[in-house]
Amino acid sequence: MATTTEPNNALAGIVQQIRAHLGSLPDDKVKATFRSDTRLVQGLTTNAKIREFDLTIDEPAQLGGANAGPTPVEVVLAAFGTCQEIVYAVYAAAMGIQLDRVEVAVEGDIDPRGFFGVKDVSPGLSSVRFNVRLGSTDSAERIAALVEAVNQHCPVLDILKQPVPLTGTVELNGKQLGA
Amino acid sequence: MATTTEPNNALAGIVQQIRAHLGSLPDDKVKATFRSDTRLVQGLTTNAKIREFDLTIDEPAQLGGANAGPTPVEVVLAAFGTCQEIVYAVYAAAMGIQLDRVEVAVEGDIDPRGFFGVKDVSPGLSSVRFNVRLGSTDSAERIAALVEAVNQHCPVLDILKQPVPLTGTVELNGKQLGA
Repeated sequence: MATTTEPNNALAGIVQQIRAHLGSLPDDKVKATFRSDTRLVQGLTTNAKIREFDLTIDEPAQLGGANAGPTPVEVVLAAFGTCQEIVYAVYAAAMGIQLDRVEVAVEGDIDPRGFFGVKDVSPGLSSVRFNVRLGSTDSAERIAALVEAVNQHCPVLDILKQPVPLTGTVELNGKQLGA
Repeated sequence: MATTTEPNNALAGIVQQIRAHLGSLPDDKVKATFRSDTRLVQGLTTNAKIREFDLTIDEPAQLGGANAGPTPVEVVLAAFGTCQEIVYAVYAAAMGIQLDRVEVAVEGDIDPRGFFGVKDVSPGLSSVRFNVRLGSTDSAERIAALVEAVNQHCPVLDILKQPVPLTGTVELNGKQLGA
């Protein structure tokens, strides 16, 4: 992040406009839908298409992959860290707070026996620790209020903290399985 | 994925070795820890470092970003789709099932009023839909057993479905905030 001595007023203006626009919409017009299209390329190497963007996600060689990219779980941790950062930037701008540094380190633990079916434990993250490093000339009190606002409004923090309602279907050779 | 007419026996051997190894370890030696280090670069554009890998995660221009990469929520959807694919490849190999196609489309809905603090709704994903497309010469019964095994053991599916225990700390100008 470029060192600045001022709050981001341009971004504050955009946020103000978006809030006014969202506030004017009826409940049934406000939903935003995001999409990803992914495929297994070879072995455990996958390709993800998100709009015009392309990601390679893989497993390390010791798990049978080609190590052509980070693993899905690592990508979730990165999505969480960067989501925190983006929400810090947005809420700092909206609150008139100057930030010259936003960095996040995230660690997550997994018991791989869950994934490999060796033991009946959860295959997902048993624990996530994160450390946010901010640089600012603003007061500790104002920064504490910013931290609270960020943790109330961060989408990926919410995704991790709460169960997400999921529905899935499977097609086999172009026909719905089980249908 | 390269078209194959055989199950992936090389991968099946790796999975068998890993299972034997994990089964031989005491509970306190089995934990795997993953890590991501991210930072806000400029505006809303972020950079994520995961081992030797680098991801750019951003927001579109209408939200005040530079559109230099996918958004954090889109990246979570891609992590989920690719995790499903990797788990399909691993469990198909372990079960001796041939797969010549694994593709996943994922859609997720958000009410942006949550993130922007316009209305007191959850800022995260209110709903996720996913469609898995498999190609195989194996029977529908064996594929149905594979689908069940995958959904029991997929780490990112579990991360979405269950609350993840999180602990966070914040440093301001190198000092612990609130300490």
